Amino acid sequence: MELRPGPEGLRSRLFHIIFESDTPAAKGFDIALIATILLGTAAILLDSVLAYHQRFGTLFDYVEWSLTVLFTLELALRIYCLERRSLYLKSFYGIVDMLAILPAWLVLVIPGSQGLVIIRLLRVLRIFRILRLMEFVGEAQLLLDAVKRSAHQILLFFLSILMVVTLFAALMYTIEPASAGFSSIPRSIYWAIVSMTTVGYGDIVPVTALGQAITVLLMLLGYSIIAVPTGVFSAQVIRSIRAERYSDEACPGCGHDHHEKRAYYCLLCGTWLDENSEDPRLAEDKDADTDEAPPATDT
Amino acid sequence: MELRPGPEGLRSRLFHIIFESDTPAAKGFDIALIATILLGTAAILLDSVLAYHQRFGTLFDYVEWSLTVLFTLELALRIYCLERRSLYLKSFYGIVDMLAILPAWLVLVIPGSQGLVIIRLLRVLRIFRILRLMEFVGEAQLLLDAVKRSAHQILLFFLSILMVVTLFAALMYTIEPASAGFSSIPRSIYWAIVSMTTVGYGDIVPVTALGQAITVLLMLLGYSIIAVPTGVFSAQVIRSIRAERYSDEACPGCGHDHHEKRAYYCLLCGTWLDENSEDPRLAEDKDADTDEAPPATDT
Amino acid sequence: MELRPGPEGLRSRLFHIIFESDTPAAKGFDIALIATILLGTAAILLDSVLAYHQRFGTLFDYVEWSLTVLFTLELALRIYCLERRSLYLKSFYGIVDMLAILPAWLVLVIPGSQGLVIIRLLRVLRIFRILRLMEFVGEAQLLLDAVKRSAHQILLFFLSILMVVTLFAALMYTIEPASAGFSSIPRSIYWAIVSMTTVGYGDIVPVTALGQAITVLLMLLGYSIIAVPTGVFSAQVIRSIRAERYSDEACPGCGHDHHEKRAYYCLLCGTWLDENSEDPRLAEDKDADTDEAPPATDT
Amino acid sequence: MELRPGPEGLRSRLFHIIFESDTPAAKGFDIALIATILLGTAAILLDSVLAYHQRFGTLFDYVEWSLTVLFTLELALRIYCLERRSLYLKSFYGIVDMLAILPAWLVLVIPGSQGLVIIRLLRVLRIFRILRLMEFVGEAQLLLDAVKRSAHQILLFFLSILMVVTLFAALMYTIEPASAGFSSIPRSIYWAIVSMTTVGYGDIVPVTALGQAITVLLMLLGYSIIAVPTGVFSAQVIRSIRAERYSDEACPGCGHDHHEKRAYYCLLCGTWLDENSEDPRLAEDKDADTDEAPPATDT
Repeated sequence: MELRPGPEGLRSRLFHIIFESDTPAAKGFDIALIATILLGTAAILLDSVLAYHQRFGTLFDYVEWSLTVLFTLELALRIYCLERRSLYLKSFYGIVDMLAILPAWLVLVIPGSQGLVIIRLLRVLRIFRILRLMEFVGEAQLLLDAVKRSAHQILLFFLSILMVVTLFAALMYTIEPASAGFSSIPRSIYWAIVSMTTVGYGDIVPVTALGQAITVLLMLLGYSIIAVPTGVFSAQVIRSIRAERYSDEACPGCGHDHHEKRAYYCLLCGTWLDENSEDPRLAEDKDADTDEAPPATDT
Repeated sequence: MELRPGPEGLRSRLFHIIFESDTPAAKGFDIALIATILLGTAAILLDSVLAYHQRFGTLFDYVEWSLTVLFTLELALRIYCLERRSLYLKSFYGIVDMLAILPAWLVLVIPGSQGLVIIRLLRVLRIFRILRLMEFVGEAQLLLDAVKRSAHQILLFFLSILMVVTLFAALMYTIEPASAGFSSIPRSIYWAIVSMTTVGYGDIVPVTALGQAITVLLMLLGYSIIAVPTGVFSAQVIRSIRAERYSDEACPGCGHDHHEKRAYYCLLCGTWLDENSEDPRLAEDKDADTDEAPPATDT
Repeated sequence: MELRPGPEGLRSRLFHIIFESDTPAAKGFDIALIATILLGTAAILLDSVLAYHQRFGTLFDYVEWSLTVLFTLELALRIYCLERRSLYLKSFYGIVDMLAILPAWLVLVIPGSQGLVIIRLLRVLRIFRILRLMEFVGEAQLLLDAVKRSAHQILLFFLSILMVVTLFAALMYTIEPASAGFSSIPRSIYWAIVSMTTVGYGDIVPVTALGQAITVLLMLLGYSIIAVPTGVFSAQVIRSIRAERYSDEACPGCGHDHHEKRAYYCLLCGTWLDENSEDPRLAEDKDADTDEAPPATDT
Repeated sequence: MELRPGPEGLRSRLFHIIFESDTPAAKGFDIALIATILLGTAAILLDSVLAYHQRFGTLFDYVEWSLTVLFTLELALRIYCLERRSLYLKSFYGIVDMLAILPAWLVLVIPGSQGLVIIRLLRVLRIFRILRLMEFVGEAQLLLDAVKRSAHQILLFFLSILMVVTLFAALMYTIEPASAGFSSIPRSIYWAIVSMTTVGYGDIVPVTALGQAITVLLMLLGYSIIAVPTGVFSAQVIRSIRAERYSDEACPGCGHDHHEKRAYYCLLCGTWLDENSEDPRLAEDKDADTDEAPPATDT
């Protein structure tokens, strides 16, 4: 999905500075952008602290508005220097770039949309691009493969957990007094998940002996079944690592399809596997060059 | 355990709608059933919240009774359209289907059996069937195999943990004051499991320096021995995955019994393994066709 | 360590009943013993609950004294029917058997030794023997092997954790006010381990912003480094499983020492490995029986 | 990095005592040093407990000053008996040795630098050297390899977690009342990490139904994604163990580069791999010694 512009002076130079990072100017732009994004995120986080809001609220507003104008300009430049603009605007980072400035402008139009603070925080995702984190994602492909292959098993695992949790919650709702916090089944489900995931806030705790005995069962269950997704996932990662080493192409001689990618001969029948070159054994037969002959040809 | 009826008109058509899901009518029935079950479960959960019970209690009662009648009708239809009815009624889902309606009818007979709310929640298990989750279970076979093979080791693990927990609890009961919550050994066992599983509610905490030192040991133990079941389980899952790839049939030549399922020749002695076809090497010898001869036939 | 007596009537019969479990009398003895031990343990646990102690205290005392007399008789019989008594008394279970009755008798001699309740609970260990749990231990050998091989790495892991925890604790002791619970470095160490093992009682929590930031680091550390012992242990279990399949005996031909236990020929040089029988290839050469000849002998 | 002095009497003898541990004198020195360090550490920890500080404060001061003088003398001796002093002073343990005495002397110069207690605790690192723990580190090489290879994936993992945690925190800050503890986004981030790492202090807990529902999601996420670093790390440890067994040198015959380190023949083409000796098959052909011939040489 390379979105390169034609070689037309200003647009081409802008493209290099904004989208690449191999020249000093382009690197400077990247660093300035990361600094700006982190500054903006810090401003949002600190503005939510009452004491800072009261003392520096106006400053944070200035920062926010300056960044909004800056990011809008930057987005305009990005769109300007690209050729296939619609492709960019529909791409994941195009949407993130737009979401990063939209909420601020919306506040002008719709009063009271300060709640969009979460969307403004999505800006941080832009750092992923600048750090060329997609390279990491290349590394992460292995993980995603493993997650995908264990997805069915983990879904079944979670469905079963939800069933178990609901039944435990209903049981505790029947046993424990409402004053201990088990005032409804949904609240008991909240408690059961807090307990089974070993979080254990302690805001709701069993007070009867029977309730504590059942809690012990629930906790031991939660403590031990974490081994299930971990085991499944470990196995799948190992499988993925192994799959990297093996090819699935079938041998033309015997049909065996589990060779190392580096194999030249089939492990089972010895047929030459590389379709782009000739079997050196045939060449050797012609040349009668028996100095480095394979073990079987000792006539 | 296919429970198909004979091809006799109405019964046959009902069977297709209720037990299969390949026609639009059958799919519609499945979706309606899932919606109904989720609605019933939501009603039970929300009815347990006091505020909702006071406002919508009558509505929830209506929902419950409508569902009970519906599920009773459905059960009747299921029984009607089957041929081997006793097989169905004794199967896992037959029992779940009956449990899903029994409690509601029992309330009419035995007053005060509202406590059967947990059994009514068992209805959710019916969703498993509709989602054809047994296919997932096919996937889950690997997990169950791994669980079964590590069962002995994990049982020993839990027996040892119970011993350790009991001894720690008795120790803390001796050391800590009853006012801190360590008022009896059973309560101390509850605390020890809360601590060792890393749940840590905080309803009972050690207050003496010695007690805190012992707690540190217990927590470090709990934190690290989780590696034991996880490691055992991971290893067993890996073993199961590997077992899928290997056959246990012995080689008729040398008796070796750990071949890949795709192998044609024994890895150790080269004997032909596939009993249903002839060894191509014998054929090649007859034809004297040496163009694609395997490496060993260097005449 | 079989401790069998000579075949001399009563002693021999007693030995069979007490130490074996293959006759109805011996099985009955085992079941009675398990029941007795569980009864005694239940009595100790329940006696520690104040309400039960007040109501059934005398009953529990009777149970305790009856069991002490019974176990003393049983120990006398065990010693009587054995030939190598000192071997038994020095064995693990001999010591457990003596510890199970000693505390009760000590109370008569030394008043105020009720604190020995923990030792009395050691009785439960006797169940392990009766359940022939040593068979499980045979299964557990694999685990112990894995633990032993990862012991050095896990010791280093714990030493490093203790260092990290001490430094974090000293840091928090400097930053947080004593009123929040960080009143001394040892208490801060207790807090740091409660946090890092993800137990999180909540009896001591950071209240300053800086303290909370440091806590976040500590928790993320604790959350992620659990992967280290788990990974090491998983790998070692896998190694142990693999080691079961492979022999370490060197090939007399080429010295290679990593063959499957079932291998007859060396994987590298083809030398016959089984010292107790002759290489069938030699026999075949003599007989000139080429019907089932190995692949290489295509003359 | 051996720092051995020349053989010049006193300096040479001092070097043996201080830096080695193979003579009784050297062993005695090591044990005395460990005891001294543990004594100093215990004094620092106990001095931070108010009750002990009031009763034994002067004693602890004496201990601290004696140790400072002792360690200064020891450092002077270490420097005296070495030849390449600058190498030692720049080495990791040289810096630790200096840090261990610096804070005490600084207190004389700069009043109020008692906060340097943490640096004084760094002394404990010296024990690592004395225990020749570097041998453990040799064992730990495998672990470090695995950590290094999974570093990129685990960094990506943590960046993603920080993103998720920030968004969850912003969401909860919007939903929950400030009185429940969600008074700012940074505080909410602290809460989110406390929850996701399953620590769960309980100092900040959700009170609204919606907040509890979101918390359930966060906890299930935290409970299950621990499988990701564990799985990655397990796989890498297994890879490291396997890498120990395999060589990466390519076969001169076919270029295959994944042989066991003990292999003499290439697994794919049978070429002799050991460059330092001759292929025994060639020798056998000359000698016509067919008694223990490999399977392929059946003339």
